[in-house]
Order: sequence, then C-alpha cells, then structure tokens
Amino acid sequence: MSISMYQAFIPGAVRALENLTDILNKVAAHAEARKIDPAIFINARLAPDMFPLSRQVQIASDTVKGGAARLAGEEPPKYDDFETTFPELVARLAKTIDYLRSFKPAQIAGSEERPVVIKTRTGELNFNGQSYLTGFVLPNLYFHVTTAYAIARHNGVELGKKDYLGKAG
Amino acid sequence: MSISMYQAFIPGAVRALENLTDILNKVAAHAEARKIDPAIFINARLAPDMFPLSRQVQIASDTVKGGAARLAGEEPPKYDDFETTFPELVARLAKTIDYLRSFKPAQIAGSEERPVVIKTRTGELNFNGQSYLTGFVLPNLYFHVTTAYAIARHNGVELGKKDYLGKAG
Repeated sequence: MSISMYQAFIPGAVRALENLTDILNKVAAHAEARKIDPAIFINARLAPDMFPLSRQVQIASDTVKGGAARLAGEEPPKYDDFETTFPELVARLAKTIDYLRSFKPAQIAGSEERPVVIKTRTGELNFNGQSYLTGFVLPNLYFHVTTAYAIARHNGVELGKKDYLGKAG
Repeated sequence: MSISMYQAFIPGAVRALENLTDILNKVAAHAEARKIDPAIFINARLAPDMFPLSRQVQIASDTVKGGAARLAGEEPPKYDDFETTFPELVARLAKTIDYLRSFKPAQIAGSEERPVVIKTRTGELNFNGQSYLTGFVLPNLYFHVTTAYAIARHNGVELGKKDYLGKAG
C-alpha cells in the first residue's frame, strides 16, 4: 500500500535526464542545420538574471546527484561545471544517469525519515527524506529541465511536450 | 520503509499550487504598480506556439485534479476554462487546492497498482498509479508551474527561486 523512496525518485529522475538529453541533441541539430553558433543557444536565458541553458543542465544534474547521495546517507560527488558545448552537456547528463543507476534500491528505499540538512547562502534547510524529495529535489529537477526546454522553445527550436515527458504510458 | 501515494502526491501538489498563487499575486501587483494592463501578462507566452500564462495555470489545475481523481478511482470534475483575470485564476487555484484537500489519505494511499488510462488525441496512455504519478502527473504539474513562473520572469516581474519552491525545509 505504498511506494519506496527509490521508486518515487530514481526511475522518474533518470527519465527526466534522458528526456533532457534528447532535447539538447535536438537543439544541437537545430543549430547545426541553420548554421547558428551552438553557443548562442547554450548561453541563452529567459531573463538577464536567470541562468543560461548550460547552467540549467548543470543544476538539474546537481539536484539529482545530491538527492540520491543524501537520501542514501552519502556525500554528493562534486562535478566541475566546465561544460560549454552540447556534447559536454550531454556527457554530464550521461555521467549523472550512470550515478543514479549505481544506487541499489535498498540504499534509498527506507530514507523517508532520514534527516537531510542543506546549507544555503542564507542558512540551513532542514528536511526529512520525504519532504526533501517531494518538496525540494523533484520540484527543482523539473524546474531546471522545464526551464531548459523553455529556453530552447523561446529560441525557436521545434520541440513539443512529448520531448519533455518522453515515452509516457 | 516507504511512503504512501498520498504522501508522494498531495502535500507537494498543494504547495505547488499555493506557490503559484503567490506568484500570480506578485505578477498582479507588479502590473498594478506599473499601470500595465494585467491582460498583457495573462496573455503572455514564451513562444507563439506555447500556451499563455492563463492556460498554464488552468493546465496545472487540470493535471492535479485529474491526478487525484484517477488515483482515487473517481471521474475528474470538469472546470470551465473561463479565467481571464488574476482574481479568477487565483480562485481557480483555490478551488483546486480545496478539491485536493477533500481527499482522505486512504482514498489515494493504495493506488500504486491501479490501472489509469488517459485518452489523448493520438491514442491511449496506459499507466499504473505509480507510473502515472511519477512519470506524468508530477512532471506535468511542475512543467506548467515553472512555465508560468518563466513567463512572469521573462516579462520583468521580480521573482526568485524561493517564490517557486515556497517555504522549503
């Protein structure tokens, strides 16, 4: 009569990053077909004080690798944010997906009560595993994937909701 | 060693709609302070073939009321999509939040194996409760809340990630 924390998190997160990979590949193909410098898309933003496409991808990656590690009681791995090309961003997502898949269900399954503390510029956020996953990790993951999609759409790349959702049902 | 489908869905969905309500109120206040017609924000889009702000709000509402009803084995209520002002959109969200809160945990708690069929223009999507929630309802909910936020940010409304996440931790 319930689902495990692993089930509530990992399969959906892997799929979100796979869908984001497909989106990035379509943006890269769009740029190439029109002979537009790919960096124009990679550096595009929806507002001057919002992050560009590249950073949206990096934060989506950080969100889920941090989520999996903290729910399993481990220290999140540090990934350098060096990516400035589509192949590099795609590789970052592939590395993140491999990391998510490296967790055994039992490492995350019982984490709903695990205390999770996130340090921010303004102080500490205190969660348990359940509130961390449902109120922080998942909303943040989908925020950054959606914003990456929105940057691409705003810049004329032909994408639809199916690219965001992937194979549903 | 697990969380219920209710816990995985309802508290986070209520908070997402509460945060979206706060965002809409800030957009309305921004328009009023600058004597800009609120309809300019309500009809704003990130791309010509994306939905405007009003429709993003309506679909966020539809996504979660459909989600709660289907997981509970009920027929989703129909809400007319008549909203063209900020007070109307805020009322739509309040009505949706009330609807979500009307469910008792036991109505949704054991729905992970319940078959869910969604009819689309191109055919049927077949889920069980768990894949419907984690692969369709939640990604769609956060997609539309994030896109509403992005439309506001792109149009100069002063918002930050905290407005999207609400009170975390």
